[in-house]
Amino acid sequence: MVTKRPTIYDVARHAGVSKSLVSLVLQGSPRVGEDSLRAVQAAIAELGYRPSRAAASLAAQRTRVVGVVIDDYTNLWFVDLVRGLHAELGPRGYRLSVVDVATAAQAEDPVEGLLATRVDGIVVGMEPPPGLVGQRLPPIVVAGTRETTGGTVGEVDTAVNDDAAGAALVVEHLAALGHRFVGHVASGGGAGRAREDGFTAAARAAGIRMVATEWRGPATDGAGYDGARRLLAAHPEVTAVFAANDLMAVGVLGAARDLGRDVPGTLSVVGYDDTSLAAARYVDLTTVDDRSFDVGGEAGRLLAARMAGGGGAPERRVLAPSLVVRGTTGPPRSVRSRLGN
Amino acid sequence: MVTKRPTIYDVARHAGVSKSLVSLVLQGSPRVGEDSLRAVQAAIAELGYRPSRAAASLAAQRTRVVGVVIDDYTNLWFVDLVRGLHAELGPRGYRLSVVDVATAAQAEDPVEGLLATRVDGIVVGMEPPPGLVGQRLPPIVVAGTRETTGGTVGEVDTAVNDDAAGAALVVEHLAALGHRFVGHVASGGGAGRAREDGFTAAARAAGIRMVATEWRGPATDGAGYDGARRLLAAHPEVTAVFAANDLMAVGVLGAARDLGRDVPGTLSVVGYDDTSLAAARYVDLTTVDDRSFDVGGEAGRLLAARMAGGGGAPERRVLAPSLVVRGTTGPPRSVRSRLGN
Repeated sequence: MVTKRPTIYDVARHAGVSKSLVSLVLQGSPRVGEDSLRAVQAAIAELGYRPSRAAASLAAQRTRVVGVVIDDYTNLWFVDLVRGLHAELGPRGYRLSVVDVATAAQAEDPVEGLLATRVDGIVVGMEPPPGLVGQRLPPIVVAGTRETTGGTVGEVDTAVNDDAAGAALVVEHLAALGHRFVGHVASGGGAGRAREDGFTAAARAAGIRMVATEWRGPATDGAGYDGARRLLAAHPEVTAVFAANDLMAVGVLGAARDLGRDVPGTLSVVGYDDTSLAAARYVDLTTVDDRSFDVGGEAGRLLAARMAGGGGAPERRVLAPSLVVRGTTGPPRSVRSRLGN
Repeated sequence: MVTKRPTIYDVARHAGVSKSLVSLVLQGSPRVGEDSLRAVQAAIAELGYRPSRAAASLAAQRTRVVGVVIDDYTNLWFVDLVRGLHAELGPRGYRLSVVDVATAAQAEDPVEGLLATRVDGIVVGMEPPPGLVGQRLPPIVVAGTRETTGGTVGEVDTAVNDDAAGAALVVEHLAALGHRFVGHVASGGGAGRAREDGFTAAARAAGIRMVATEWRGPATDGAGYDGARRLLAAHPEVTAVFAANDLMAVGVLGAARDLGRDVPGTLSVVGYDDTSLAAARYVDLTTVDDRSFDVGGEAGRLLAARMAGGGGAPERRVLAPSLVVRGTTGPPRSVRSRLGN
């Protein structure tokens, strides 16, 4: 398997023709006779020759590769995003290269890496890194709600779900169940901020008491666990916790268990993203479907238009999220008692 | 952000020099005078020009990209593998492009895609797809135990953890806790097979009764749930279940909850891989550490040697796994009763 890759010269020698003729065949030229065509095709098949994509790309100044930058492989919200991108860009001949900034920390700067490869377009599924701001770049689409600091967001196309509307759906659900004092385990980043602001505003409008943690770092299982421990220690009378995403919500479930809070008996828990983790039977998490697949589709269409040379002002596509009710939410204990449970 | 990418001609015009001189600067030629050098560097910075990697790659017949093929982003075992590969290949100037076969199902064949990009090397973190067999390819390293059907495994370098030894550690742990009748929720694939065979052999050697499911498909949460439901319905006297991997083990935890089996009170559960999912407080899963990061490191070193032109017979690096005891295993109820619990 370590044999040298066959070249166009090997193909020409094997077929008994000139290199120029092989080149014509590869270009699909009609000037090649039937016999020569068959001889070259047979040689290509026998040698396992593959035309250099680099050569074709150089000629066309295109690579047909779209880079996707994310910040955490273990936060599974990106999986449906990538599926949606594939569904939209695959049939257009683009391939995706997914780069996780955290995983690559010990290697070269992943943004530099993407740029060096000359991807035709970039989908940013995280807070835009500094390297993406103020440079001349291929077309960029930002997927998901991001902070506007740094200048990138607002200057490029974006595809998002309406995080504030999603958070309002959570308040509506919890209010309908009878919850009157709810907690929010917050995270940093634009999506985290939008979800917190939306939750706060909706709770106020519904006349529900609300407290939130002040964490502004990454939305991890550990941060969800620590945030919930602190929040529930300070406010044990909270009957429901909304976490900034599913990963943090699983951390909240861990904290609830360690604190002896039965879910949903004495504590309801809600996440955001509707990842495969939320859908696992053991987790069975009530969550907000952030429409990742559709956001990926919109991002793909926006990017395809830019890569095809389309101009015009930056566009913003906003999709309506929906609530997915599973086993981690129910009426609070006080309401249960009144109902005779 | 949709402005045209600057070319080497733009740089030359901006710097007031010839294109050839810009080219010499880009090649780091010592034949360029100080003034010209500064003018070109200033033009490059002002225009945001980036040398075409495609051009450099074409010249060198190298892309410095290593493709990693996996079959499921939601099975998090690959995350540490990629970290290990980055740690080893990043400093050597390679970047990684991760392709998930399942996610790309609607687009072009991902293996074809990798080959078309002319990656310098491929790490296969799944059962080798048909496209990888019998073709002339760049160097390949297979990471993880795979089926030997198809011809690829055995002809290429491999880096694995010793799955049979890992399964034996599980038997040892369960036997020491007092379990005498254990179940295995199996999966398809080489790693699944090796773990099942190792578990079966070790249980027999330890004189412990064992039953296994017959599933040969992907190791998913759903398959783990269904397998455990069936196994525990047929053999309710089983006191511990070892799943083929962490994802399936979380499915087993879901089944245990739905069946009213307290974990670890009336059922112990063990996974394999020691993923971030197993380490989440809410899951807190006893599992086997498959040394993914180190396997990635070994795979990276093997691949780097081949990409540097190294020949010789295929090598196989085998790493010893270790057991990570968390909250899902304990003595079986019968033993607990005798102990006065």
